[in-house]
Amino acid sequence: MSGLTHFDGKGDAHMVDVSDKAVTSRVATAEGWVKMARETFDIITEGRAKKGDVLGVARLAGIMGAKQCSNLIPLCHPLPITKVAVELTPDETLPGIRIEATVKTTGQTGVEMEALTAVNVAALTVYDMSKAVDKAMEIGGIRVILKDGGKSGRYEAK
Amino acid sequence: MSGLTHFDGKGDAHMVDVSDKAVTSRVATAEGWVKMARETFDIITEGRAKKGDVLGVARLAGIMGAKQCSNLIPLCHPLPITKVAVELTPDETLPGIRIEATVKTTGQTGVEMEALTAVNVAALTVYDMSKAVDKAMEIGGIRVILKDGGKSGRYEAK
Amino acid sequence: MSGLTHFDGKGDAHMVDVSDKAVTSRVATAEGWVKMARETFDIITEGRAKKGDVLGVARLAGIMGAKQCSNLIPLCHPLPITKVAVELTPDETLPGIRIEATVKTTGQTGVEMEALTAVNVAALTVYDMSKAVDKAMEIGGIRVILKDGGKSGRYEAK
Amino acid sequence: MSGLTHFDGKGDAHMVDVSDKAVTSRVATAEGWVKMARETFDIITEGRAKKGDVLGVARLAGIMGAKQCSNLIPLCHPLPITKVAVELTPDETLPGIRIEATVKTTGQTGVEMEALTAVNVAALTVYDMSKAVDKAMEIGGIRVILKDGGKSGRYEAK
Amino acid sequence: MSGLTHFDGKGDAHMVDVSDKAVTSRVATAEGWVKMARETFDIITEGRAKKGDVLGVARLAGIMGAKQCSNLIPLCHPLPITKVAVELTPDETLPGIRIEATVKTTGQTGVEMEALTAVNVAALTVYDMSKAVDKAMEIGGIRVILKDGGKSGRYEAK
Amino acid sequence: MSGLTHFDGKGDAHMVDVSDKAVTSRVATAEGWVKMARETFDIITEGRAKKGDVLGVARLAGIMGAKQCSNLIPLCHPLPITKVAVELTPDETLPGIRIEATVKTTGQTGVEMEALTAVNVAALTVYDMSKAVDKAMEIGGIRVILKDGGKSGRYEAK
Repeated sequence: MSGLTHFDGKGDAHMVDVSDKAVTSRVATAEGWVKMARETFDIITEGRAKKGDVLGVARLAGIMGAKQCSNLIPLCHPLPITKVAVELTPDETLPGIRIEATVKTTGQTGVEMEALTAVNVAALTVYDMSKAVDKAMEIGGIRVILKDGGKSGRYEAK
Repeated sequence: MSGLTHFDGKGDAHMVDVSDKAVTSRVATAEGWVKMARETFDIITEGRAKKGDVLGVARLAGIMGAKQCSNLIPLCHPLPITKVAVELTPDETLPGIRIEATVKTTGQTGVEMEALTAVNVAALTVYDMSKAVDKAMEIGGIRVILKDGGKSGRYEAK
Repeated sequence: MSGLTHFDGKGDAHMVDVSDKAVTSRVATAEGWVKMARETFDIITEGRAKKGDVLGVARLAGIMGAKQCSNLIPLCHPLPITKVAVELTPDETLPGIRIEATVKTTGQTGVEMEALTAVNVAALTVYDMSKAVDKAMEIGGIRVILKDGGKSGRYEAK
Repeated sequence: MSGLTHFDGKGDAHMVDVSDKAVTSRVATAEGWVKMARETFDIITEGRAKKGDVLGVARLAGIMGAKQCSNLIPLCHPLPITKVAVELTPDETLPGIRIEATVKTTGQTGVEMEALTAVNVAALTVYDMSKAVDKAMEIGGIRVILKDGGKSGRYEAK
Repeated sequence: MSGLTHFDGKGDAHMVDVSDKAVTSRVATAEGWVKMARETFDIITEGRAKKGDVLGVARLAGIMGAKQCSNLIPLCHPLPITKVAVELTPDETLPGIRIEATVKTTGQTGVEMEALTAVNVAALTVYDMSKAVDKAMEIGGIRVILKDGGKSGRYEAK
Repeated sequence: MSGLTHFDGKGDAHMVDVSDKAVTSRVATAEGWVKMARETFDIITEGRAKKGDVLGVARLAGIMGAKQCSNLIPLCHPLPITKVAVELTPDETLPGIRIEATVKTTGQTGVEMEALTAVNVAALTVYDMSKAVDKAMEIGGIRVILKDGGKSGRYEAK
């Protein structure tokens, strides 16, 4: 047995049947970061106050991205998202921007893909808005740190 | 001067005016990876032959994702993409899947965001299809490795 | 306290958490108009019977627009819309077209944004289809006239 | 002859054939406003500095909305937009927010619908973000103020 | 009385009000086929094993297509789909590919349009991927073969 | 050699590189039909005049569907469509509705998929709007009847 629920007995991809799963309150949090040159970091963080809000634009893109999750990920279920929050925090030690996204739903399946999508789209937006000064930025550290609600119980990243 | 072209003189975000840029042939390549447990790696790579093609689904999701780039990234220009190729290669040393996406256009601005979006959506799809057996996978190493065409010339990652 | 629920304590935009709101039957009605030259009005209203149904196309565009609301408005929640009706009525005294849209859902938040989006997209479509003969048309009078269901109770415009 | 180019000889709606129109540089500017209670105006404008950037979110929504124009307006042509700028300016005399959007393309048809869509989506977003304190806001004054490029020449609103 | 529920008393199209319908478990199955030259059939079916998986790509396109149903069909309700499965089976006697799609929801209206959309998009994708060798393929036999759940009861095609 | 251009040397699906193809004027026409019970046919055709315009709604859905083609068909290139016309003609001998769609572009690849998508979405919409009185309708006869422009020359169905 492969354990990959997105394939049927013949190995063909399908959207898993969640019809019989309970409608419960579900939450997931994902995180990631964009690493950049010190100079880029200074421009972005200084810019926040004065010259253009990279982090504000990226936050919004992340929120809107979460709503596109089931259109982007082929076997994802469309879900009535009830909350999205995306936080972008400058971290001088990277140097770069740390991103954390939390998504909630009252539905029949989890929202970790929505949270991951929010992080990814926010990270891509930081890259897009800063690429004129730094093409070598790197996006990484993207993972689920919390998932709760539903039958499989609570998951917390170590 | 901030150097961030996505903001106007007042610091307000806008979509950069590319009206006067030449219509040239442009290409960009981006890369990234999904790191996973050894056991997950074995299921996916073995599954490719027999039990369900995770990499084939993710490749397709990446290609379709590239076409959604300008809908996801707020200040990205819509572009007539002329080619998308996404490669997913199992790498036992990660262990995990390495992803590389190349996008071409004949247009007035570059396609590195499209290439990055293809990598990100492909990576998210690998995560989605494998999360039933491994929630601790990590997505990272996402960066532009080649960009060519247009006035700013050729960029190659070191 | 600002009273603007779309911002968190730090002033960052987020999608309001409606997870704990009751699933109730909700309805909203919005209205607006497109004002135009007398001659344009005559072409459209006469055309309805004989030469092309501007109002029929705009009605459909409004209905479909309501379904795109949460993709357009950054902090709007996606909702399972259960009804959309859009009415376009010629009004000789404007002269122009009056638009009224009613949307219903059984969900955790209201549908006034969906009703407003339907009115706006219908109005834009009237403009688009008539602009060959009249570029000076004006869209206005767009407001919510009824909102009911949910905790905040019934709202009726004066 | 009706003059409505979006209908064929039988009165059936169709997307106008622009295949033989020249690819030229085109621009359009549209404007509109959101009128609100004095108290709402104070919260928004004060909030800009301190408690949450309604205008920044609406500006971004307007820019992204312009890119959705041909998906919303049934007979609009998809166009490679080369620039979008949306300005939101508080106007104490309304009191409310004035919105102006400018869109450019290098294409075969004009972009006044894209500019109008940007204004409308920005206005709807201002409404959405402020509706918790003021349901009686009104959106109006939406019109094209400039259109240039292409065979029909320059149009300026009086 | 016309019996066409998508029109109101005046003959204007609207989205039917399903607010008062029960939330029940609903399922629908649709089928169709793509007929092609014998040689094309051989390339596709042989290719499945060795040179490129037309059927795998089409299956995925069908699944993702089902999720776009309410964006494509003007008066369709958006629904929280809980399952999509699409099967493509080579049939030497056509010769061609038979397609069957099953969609489930827990909602207030049926999913036969989603199942039909999945079949259509899968069929179009088979055409797209094979058109380099065969432009004369034909798509047909598209119909609902099963619909169950909801007040109108079970429907099975004869 | 398989002849299927949507696969690379390893048999992996990709979006064909059209970067070096000439930008030429291209056109394609596709056709199809919806077969129905005599009684349904009478309701629809009679309704056109008096009780609700099924064909008008389906025509519009077909036009809008053509614009979604590259979002639905995984390996389709996004194209600046310059014209879409969809005709729906009642045919008593079916009995049912015949659909014909013509799409034009000035681009680097053909528009037969756009024409086929327009036919399919129009057919689905006829089904959707009539299904309350007839679930046994069948969609078929969908094929390309004309394709011209570009290197591969003119194709006409026999």
